[in-house]
Amino acid sequence: MIIDNLFWIVPIASVIALAFAYHFFRQMMREDEGTDLMKKIAQHVRTGAMSYLKQQYKVVFIVFIVLMLLFVYLAFGLGVQNKWTPFAFLTGGFFSGLAGFFGMKTATYASARTANAAKNSLNHGLRVAFRSGAVMGLVVVGLAVLDISLWYLILNYFIDEPDSSHKLIIITTTMLTFGMGASTQALFARVGGGIYTKAADVGADLVGKVEAGIPEDDPRNPATIADNVGDNVGDVAGMGADLYESYAGSILATAALGATAFAATGVDMQYKAILAPMLIASVGIVLSILGIYMVRTKEGATMRDLLRSLGVGVNVSSALIAILTFVILYALGLQNWMGISFSVVTGLLAGIIIGLSTEYFTSHSYKPTRKISESAQTGPATVIISGVGLGMVSTAIPVITIAIAILIAFLSAINFDVKHMLDAQNIQLGLYGIGIAAVGMLSTLGITLATDAYGPIADNAGGNAEMSHLDPEVRKRTDALDALGNTTAATGKGFAIGSAALTALALLASYIEEIKIGLIRIGENVITLANGDTIDTAKATIVDFMNYYQVNLMNPVVLVGVFIGAMMAFLFSGLTMNAVGRAAQKMVEEVRRQFREIKGIMEGEAEPDYARCVAISTRGAQIEMILPSLLAIILPIVTGLVLGVAGVLGLLAGGLAAGFVLAIFMANSGGAWDNAKKYIEEGNFGGKGSNNHKAAIVGDTVGDPFKDTSGPSLNILIKLMSMVSIVMAGLTASFSIL
Amino acid sequence: MIIDNLFWIVPIASVIALAFAYHFFRQMMREDEGTDLMKKIAQHVRTGAMSYLKQQYKVVFIVFIVLMLLFVYLAFGLGVQNKWTPFAFLTGGFFSGLAGFFGMKTATYASARTANAAKNSLNHGLRVAFRSGAVMGLVVVGLAVLDISLWYLILNYFIDEPDSSHKLIIITTTMLTFGMGASTQALFARVGGGIYTKAADVGADLVGKVEAGIPEDDPRNPATIADNVGDNVGDVAGMGADLYESYAGSILATAALGATAFAATGVDMQYKAILAPMLIASVGIVLSILGIYMVRTKEGATMRDLLRSLGVGVNVSSALIAILTFVILYALGLQNWMGISFSVVTGLLAGIIIGLSTEYFTSHSYKPTRKISESAQTGPATVIISGVGLGMVSTAIPVITIAIAILIAFLSAINFDVKHMLDAQNIQLGLYGIGIAAVGMLSTLGITLATDAYGPIADNAGGNAEMSHLDPEVRKRTDALDALGNTTAATGKGFAIGSAALTALALLASYIEEIKIGLIRIGENVITLANGDTIDTAKATIVDFMNYYQVNLMNPVVLVGVFIGAMMAFLFSGLTMNAVGRAAQKMVEEVRRQFREIKGIMEGEAEPDYARCVAISTRGAQIEMILPSLLAIILPIVTGLVLGVAGVLGLLAGGLAAGFVLAIFMANSGGAWDNAKKYIEEGNFGGKGSNNHKAAIVGDTVGDPFKDTSGPSLNILIKLMSMVSIVMAGLTASFSIL
Repeated sequence: MIIDNLFWIVPIASVIALAFAYHFFRQMMREDEGTDLMKKIAQHVRTGAMSYLKQQYKVVFIVFIVLMLLFVYLAFGLGVQNKWTPFAFLTGGFFSGLAGFFGMKTATYASARTANAAKNSLNHGLRVAFRSGAVMGLVVVGLAVLDISLWYLILNYFIDEPDSSHKLIIITTTMLTFGMGASTQALFARVGGGIYTKAADVGADLVGKVEAGIPEDDPRNPATIADNVGDNVGDVAGMGADLYESYAGSILATAALGATAFAATGVDMQYKAILAPMLIASVGIVLSILGIYMVRTKEGATMRDLLRSLGVGVNVSSALIAILTFVILYALGLQNWMGISFSVVTGLLAGIIIGLSTEYFTSHSYKPTRKISESAQTGPATVIISGVGLGMVSTAIPVITIAIAILIAFLSAINFDVKHMLDAQNIQLGLYGIGIAAVGMLSTLGITLATDAYGPIADNAGGNAEMSHLDPEVRKRTDALDALGNTTAATGKGFAIGSAALTALALLASYIEEIKIGLIRIGENVITLANGDTIDTAKATIVDFMNYYQVNLMNPVVLVGVFIGAMMAFLFSGLTMNAVGRAAQKMVEEVRRQFREIKGIMEGEAEPDYARCVAISTRGAQIEMILPSLLAIILPIVTGLVLGVAGVLGLLAGGLAAGFVLAIFMANSGGAWDNAKKYIEEGNFGGKGSNNHKAAIVGDTVGDPFKDTSGPSLNILIKLMSMVSIVMAGLTASFSIL
Repeated sequence: MIIDNLFWIVPIASVIALAFAYHFFRQMMREDEGTDLMKKIAQHVRTGAMSYLKQQYKVVFIVFIVLMLLFVYLAFGLGVQNKWTPFAFLTGGFFSGLAGFFGMKTATYASARTANAAKNSLNHGLRVAFRSGAVMGLVVVGLAVLDISLWYLILNYFIDEPDSSHKLIIITTTMLTFGMGASTQALFARVGGGIYTKAADVGADLVGKVEAGIPEDDPRNPATIADNVGDNVGDVAGMGADLYESYAGSILATAALGATAFAATGVDMQYKAILAPMLIASVGIVLSILGIYMVRTKEGATMRDLLRSLGVGVNVSSALIAILTFVILYALGLQNWMGISFSVVTGLLAGIIIGLSTEYFTSHSYKPTRKISESAQTGPATVIISGVGLGMVSTAIPVITIAIAILIAFLSAINFDVKHMLDAQNIQLGLYGIGIAAVGMLSTLGITLATDAYGPIADNAGGNAEMSHLDPEVRKRTDALDALGNTTAATGKGFAIGSAALTALALLASYIEEIKIGLIRIGENVITLANGDTIDTAKATIVDFMNYYQVNLMNPVVLVGVFIGAMMAFLFSGLTMNAVGRAAQKMVEEVRRQFREIKGIMEGEAEPDYARCVAISTRGAQIEMILPSLLAIILPIVTGLVLGVAGVLGLLAGGLAAGFVLAIFMANSGGAWDNAKKYIEEGNFGGKGSNNHKAAIVGDTVGDPFKDTSGPSLNILIKLMSMVSIVMAGLTASFSIL
């Protein structure tokens, strides 16, 4: 069969991605790392980052072992789960961790090399930093697609189920388990890394910049190495794990939906529907590599040229994938290929609009952020008030965009059959459309992540340049690269949060599918609807299940679930905020102690104890990440056991909506505060060192945990809660109280 | 019929409430207003407050006229609405405004008198302030019950419907329209008043305390009169309109639910179910008066005695209403009177638990708030981070409490028939249980509002004492009263937000009822369910409608609604935050201008231009309140027209959940910042004037709009969106696109 051969495109694309990643890595490694001092500082950061990652993986390993034992018990002891669950869970976590590891390894090798290249020219600096970012982007997409193809082949070979349509459903839903593994790993990476980086950053700023009045990244500041390590463990390793999970999650969710939605159309079409998201992702990988090669500028390029150059790479990839999607789905012969292609494009467009909105609200080229700078004239309180106001107002465009995208992706996948849009079959197809919109949104992740990940590399290069006393011109160049990164990162964030919402929505349907499988497994072969009709569980549609469990908004259990879900988003953010506060406090005390006790530190005669600060951040992050992360795993399980299916769906919907809005609010407030400060530093409203600048720094410091700890962790929380619910559906189907 | 006579208890209770309110008002007016200077300052504040209220009512009047014309067109032109709608809407707004007016009138007369009484003793001061607060409490409950009984009598007389069961349904659902009037008025009062008071407060603090270094309420500060006016228009008039709406809303929602839930049991039981919430409220009024008389302390009482004395009043009223509820419902002969009484008690208990949780998180007697004070040592940024963290974490207990209360109130009302809890009839009864739990929670509003409203009076008395150069001992006493008020206000806030959630939940059922009436009105007499069955619209149950419109969580329209609802809560808060920021900015500029241009102002030789500041706050509030308030009215209408019934219910559920959690977060963060500052002022962590104190002031200033503008407005937003949807249901039923 031709489509059997089409599948092999997927692993091939993964090998291509990894090969190019290796190629770019070698290229970067061939660059000169600079002076001995530069090498030494880079080595410090590398050691700190690796020691953190080791510690982090140790803790996460224990969590994984405990959860795996639980899965083993549920699967082999109680018999309420699929037996592949424990292993799939483990590999998801492993690969996600690996993506973070490779990304960080690359970043820590690249920073000194970028600084050294920036000695030559802005352009050379960009090339080194961007190629290193590309390693990260390609490793993430390559590993994700590799993991997916491996599991697909393994399960296809081992699962013994004569009905091939049913077999495909079992394969795809089992694969969701490795999505849960990836989400769990990602949450720990984001929360732990986020706490680490912000504790170090806030600590370094509060004592260094505010109290001692020394510049950022000054080598006299004991927390400065920890701060640079933080950029790597939070912004690189954390983001890598996060986007690995988003990318794999969207493909897996869509494949699982495809298997059920097209079950009625025959096994052939089912197979095509599963293949579709994988093929779009695979072609996206190739286009991303093409795009990466298009990012090249002439010597002596201006900032504007650089930005345009990055934009060309991303835009060409996006435009090509939009066009090629039609070709792929047509060639595949997928039913309603045209409509589903439009769903993909809808997702892509929605991501771009959300990115533009993020840019508008957080870039100091526009009015909203400048208003915050202006409000600094009346002190830090008004900076905070206006930043919170801006962040809250900025949620409107992304939410309305995603709302419209949901409706269009849904309707497009069912050929705009509005009259029958809520028929069981159409709901499945429509949700498939929503899932594949998320795949479309992330299809060019290889390059968008490259433009995103090179930011922290440039940031670190700046730190290295500062600490190695390079010509101030070099720092200016790395700052320019960093600022450029901030702008492109805005788009990246739009894609991350938008795809999280779409994927989580699509996962709701997979949850019902797993509940159905769970019911059959425990022998509940017949369900009774509200009007008394009975129906075969195996034949019950998604609408029948809504009726059976009365998952409607008059059911108080659903409403209670929605309340708890909304609360969870806030509780989780509050816990991570507090964690940063506490960890930063410890850092502040340590830096103050060193300033006080180490003689000659301020004169640059004695070296501060960098390692101690690294150790404090590491320990703080490890202790603090446990509670919020475990809560995210435990709450859906407890909700399932107490409130049942209706409660869980309420929880997921409430958590999804509130979490999405809260995440945008926090990310945008934080981003705007950061840039409002930069705007003042550029000489507006009094410039650096003025009272207005001090007021703006307060906003920036508050914004740090907003945008780099709590905000991005919410993306993962939303999906992890869905994944946990899906994986634990067997338990809910068997034992819930209500 | 004996129960026909029972009804008369309701208007009689209202007359009693108003009579006692008048009595307490006269008592207060007989007190001496103090020196000429005191009188003059009080007169300033009175004039400012009244001129604000006049301006406010002018704007609101225009809005009401426009909305009324719309209703007239919908009812008489298009024929999609009940013809009583326009008039009921108008009176709801009128009475809500009246409650605010009387409360404010009393408060502005009471402040100087309280200051003067505090010259004698703490105890005398408490008596005057508390009795004045009692005027407010009794006016609110008295007017609400009066309005309800009047409309009940009018509609009963005029509505011409032979089927008396159906007639009761029409009467009660029509009465919800005046709930919408009250909500609209309340929203404007809260938003406008909230912006006014915080613009003045923030403006006065920023320039006065922070820049010029003069104490709070210093007569040299041009914004000080505006600040005191603000307490009256925001905390008194705004709160009065708000709680009028909560109180009336909970009774009306429950009555409407009662009419439909008991329709199957016969008109007699229906009538009893309508009467039940009114009777509980009426008896609660009498018990509140009893409780008010129990608040009396011996001369020379300590702070602790005073607190205990207030507590005794509230607790005795609460305990008695809990017991008497069983008696009332038993005497009424309401079906399952025992279970429904337990629902009432559940509500009462939930309110108390939420209040205690609020107190724990916002009082500086406990660890959380003290941690914020401690974090002031590392500057304003960590104050903000820890306050935001605290507020977010503090949402957990209230949400879990309300979740449990919802389930218990629901199950209790259906005799814990868990197996059949989702039968159509039981859902109606259960939602009635949730509604009456809200009534129970607010049953002792007469006294809880008194303990709440006397706080701003004491606050103003302090302002008056400061400006009239009274003995610092007097200011100390009024500060003690104010602090006492903060503690009791915490409980009051718990009741307000908790009842909002329960009422809004109960209103969901009324929405479906109105949709049903709307469908019948336009001749859609048959509906077709998902499985193809057709059913008489008139006989369709609430579950049938869920099925017909597929209001389940797999319907993308519902999910889109939930997203938009959650976004609305944030957008609304963001707009009000920005409004405060802008209005405060203008105030800051004006105060700076006066300091600069009026010679001798700082030496106390020239009088500042108070009136100009009052005018700026007034104008700012009027302009800024329009957009967020109109949005709250328009969004549900547009959602109904575009997304239909399923979208509206999603919107309401999402707005309710996210709004509830966001409101608690903002209120608690704000309260904790305020008290963290007070804790430092009491001499901890460096005390007044220290750097830590300055950092804490930043938190307090940020907290002002959190706790007094955006937070409390969300309570009303939640219900207003429900009310608008209900009132506009006819439009949605006729014209929606999806």
